Amino acid sequence: MVAGVVERGVIGVDLGGTKLLAGAVDADLAIHHRTNRLIYGLDQNGLVQMVADAVQEIRTAVGDGIEAVGFGIPCTFDSRTGMAVQAANAPLHEIAFHEVMAERLGLPVAVDNDANCAVLCEARVGSAAGCSEVVLLTLGTGIGGGLLLRGEVYRGWLGGGAEMGHMVVDMDGPPCQSNCPNYGCLETMCSGTTLVRLASVAVARRPDTALGLALEEGRELTGPLITELAQQGDPVCRDAIGEIGRRLGIGVVSLVNIFNPQVVVIGGGVSAAGDLLLDPARAMVHERALLPGRDAVRMEIARFGPEAGMVGAALMAREAGGLFNAGYSEIVA
Amino acid sequence: MVAGVVERGVIGVDLGGTKLLAGAVDADLAIHHRTNRLIYGLDQNGLVQMVADAVQEIRTAVGDGIEAVGFGIPCTFDSRTGMAVQAANAPLHEIAFHEVMAERLGLPVAVDNDANCAVLCEARVGSAAGCSEVVLLTLGTGIGGGLLLRGEVYRGWLGGGAEMGHMVVDMDGPPCQSNCPNYGCLETMCSGTTLVRLASVAVARRPDTALGLALEEGRELTGPLITELAQQGDPVCRDAIGEIGRRLGIGVVSLVNIFNPQVVVIGGGVSAAGDLLLDPARAMVHERALLPGRDAVRMEIARFGPEAGMVGAALMAREAGGLFNAGYSEIVA
Repeated sequence: MVAGVVERGVIGVDLGGTKLLAGAVDADLAIHHRTNRLIYGLDQNGLVQMVADAVQEIRTAVGDGIEAVGFGIPCTFDSRTGMAVQAANAPLHEIAFHEVMAERLGLPVAVDNDANCAVLCEARVGSAAGCSEVVLLTLGTGIGGGLLLRGEVYRGWLGGGAEMGHMVVDMDGPPCQSNCPNYGCLETMCSGTTLVRLASVAVARRPDTALGLALEEGRELTGPLITELAQQGDPVCRDAIGEIGRRLGIGVVSLVNIFNPQVVVIGGGVSAAGDLLLDPARAMVHERALLPGRDAVRMEIARFGPEAGMVGAALMAREAGGLFNAGYSEIVA
Repeated sequence: MVAGVVERGVIGVDLGGTKLLAGAVDADLAIHHRTNRLIYGLDQNGLVQMVADAVQEIRTAVGDGIEAVGFGIPCTFDSRTGMAVQAANAPLHEIAFHEVMAERLGLPVAVDNDANCAVLCEARVGSAAGCSEVVLLTLGTGIGGGLLLRGEVYRGWLGGGAEMGHMVVDMDGPPCQSNCPNYGCLETMCSGTTLVRLASVAVARRPDTALGLALEEGRELTGPLITELAQQGDPVCRDAIGEIGRRLGIGVVSLVNIFNPQVVVIGGGVSAAGDLLLDPARAMVHERALLPGRDAVRMEIARFGPEAGMVGAALMAREAGGLFNAGYSEIVA
């Protein structure tokens, strides 16, 4: 094997609301040539082009041993038409993404919801390994949801299910973001976007904190900055993450009552806050959920962290188990 | 066959928060000798005795062709211990109900959550016949939930799942009823109990309505009275049912986003209001849920109405497919 060349590899692509993360994954789950792209401001054509470019960049870097590409995209699907029909946080609408990508790339392509890919990763090789009933939430720009029920990814009747970020937790709450017509969704209460907003409001009242000084020095107010300063003890950042954790816990109470899962896995950028986020959520579940789910459920950070979606997309492509597959007849197992 | 004798029959028992409904169901799903009991004010021993008495009454009436008894009870279960662990609206706690009943009755016994029985009935022979992805809510004293996912009743990891009545729709809402430690549950927002409370508050301000006059004549303020007067056009009763329907719709939006079901079935006493209840709920779903679930889902009243749980319990007993079975080795199919 030549150095820099991945044999029998698959490329996993995780498309979020803010950025794309992609890499080549070999048979041992080692990741080669990660690439990141910001997707802010693109229209659908621009996004498709950028995604194709990212995949080509990786193929060029790792050699011609790539057998397939898996995509996790932040959409609901309609299995009757093969279309990605609705994306709360990405410029995708009524597009047969698997066909478009298979044609552009000339490779077998598998496509599923991004959080479905993440739950596949975590259930196979991550924090939920060996579990049959798994609820996963990714806290990033928005909130994605993935379900593993009776050991299989659950997508609902037509492929539009598992959107737990869009369950109502505050019926008189604010309108949801961008393309969701709902009000008071979990997503509006505890996404990464909301974390930044909470910290922004709080720091205006407490400019003499580490966060206030960092902003004065010109640093941008982002989720990673809040996590970094919270871990150093900044009270504004700790309070903001704690409040997001409590709100997350309220959503998880509902999910424990509905699914009685073995484990609830939290991924996405906000999950970098670790137990600062999970401990208030766990306390809420312990206080408010029904038995036996309340005492039996574990709540864990995704072992693959922000890479769970990418690795899951690659696993899906290797197994050709996504919601939509194009070109897979060419592969002989 | 002697008149009054049911051959190859099973008894279905539906235990709700307020009353028990039981009957013998023959192989053609005809119901023989229905019986009703109020359960208000009983402790666990009293309840078990009353349930056993009701079953014996039916056996006496229909002859000795009864082969098994199915119970739907309003509890979560723990499959590790065989116990009914938590009942929001009934005096049952840490009881191995299937064993207790099998011993008392000397018959094979199957036990499951009451709403799981209702969803089984509706999916086999009711409003969801032929569907694989079904969400059912029973609106009575509380709100029960039943799920059919990929064609099978879904109970979660240990048997504690499908409690959709205890998902949060108002995170700053009031404490849930009796034995649920949660706040702002769907149950607190749109159960039959809440319907009566809404009408009670409204009629105090409008005593000159049909409802006001009925109460003046000494009628008791109940869900059935509200439904009856709403269907005759009383504005207080119509408004109360409409408000319950809108709140129900908010819960169903979440369930459509989570499950992307083919059909959402509404049972329980409040469902007697029919489209007065469902139309505002449907409008909410149409306005707020995500595609493709929003346009694809049907919302229907349970075809078996308040008898869905009883018939489902009987179907379960015939098939021995409940969460817990005792004595079923005696039955040869």
